[in-house]
Amino acid sequence: MMKKTIVKKKLKPKTPARKKSKNTTALSGTVTKTTAKADPQHIPWHTVGLEDLNPLLQRQFVVGQEVMLARVLLKRGCIVPEHSHHNEQITYILEGALKFWIDGREIVVHAGEVLTIPPNMPHKAEAVEDTVDLDIFNPPRADWINKTDQYLRAKK
Amino acid sequence: MMKKTIVKKKLKPKTPARKKSKNTTALSGTVTKTTAKADPQHIPWHTVGLEDLNPLLQRQFVVGQEVMLARVLLKRGCIVPEHSHHNEQITYILEGALKFWIDGREIVVHAGEVLTIPPNMPHKAEAVEDTVDLDIFNPPRADWINKTDQYLRAKK
Repeated sequence: MMKKTIVKKKLKPKTPARKKSKNTTALSGTVTKTTAKADPQHIPWHTVGLEDLNPLLQRQFVVGQEVMLARVLLKRGCIVPEHSHHNEQITYILEGALKFWIDGREIVVHAGEVLTIPPNMPHKAEAVEDTVDLDIFNPPRADWINKTDQYLRAKK
Repeated sequence: MMKKTIVKKKLKPKTPARKKSKNTTALSGTVTKTTAKADPQHIPWHTVGLEDLNPLLQRQFVVGQEVMLARVLLKRGCIVPEHSHHNEQITYILEGALKFWIDGREIVVHAGEVLTIPPNMPHKAEAVEDTVDLDIFNPPRADWINKTDQYLRAKK
């Protein structure tokens, strides 16, 4: 009988299986079992770990079901090497400015401006000022969640 | 042969057909042909129309392919009546505070805090201060794009 005694946690039933995306390549085999919560989550940013990726780059994020919201803090001179991902991205600069190399163009995105980056489009960025950047991804970045985003992690 | 003459517009190929969501009810029959851009879009917020929905509520948004980012400006006392939508939502309060009624709880989300709202979960909100709110939706809100969001629009 013990085995059947379950403490009720007043949790909602978990979400049904995650919606299958056509573009799951980056996820396959690497994805952590993220809890695809069906409960609302109330999360002050100051309670979310701020990860030091390299001396000029820090990051924290909140993961929903199909969307991730990240706060990325870049010191002036920080370079995000060219990379691409199947995840659609929307970047909103809250403070500072990032210069992007994307789609054959150079675009400086200042505070109060947005850049949408379609899936699989290579891009590189450099912080031209100390910057607070919001990044939205659909689906969530499995490589960020799993810490396999070596392109952002400094060896030096 | 004429039939094969196609004017090349130097546009990127459009995105393949939008990923089918299981929950497309709100979209069916009402969705505007939004341009699902495969090009990056660089959009300063000050160039995006700020829509007056009622005397206490203004809104502007940027639409990507599967994600929408909205800036919502609420004056103290503004009430967003209870509603729900199949779109997953992440709310990030930049300034002020919103009180939510959701999932049988009352949650006040202050500046610097995030609330994730799973698809189809009814919620109501009240601005307890003048508030700048970011809302992220997946997929984009067809009713906002098509201006069929009567629950937000004042009669008075």
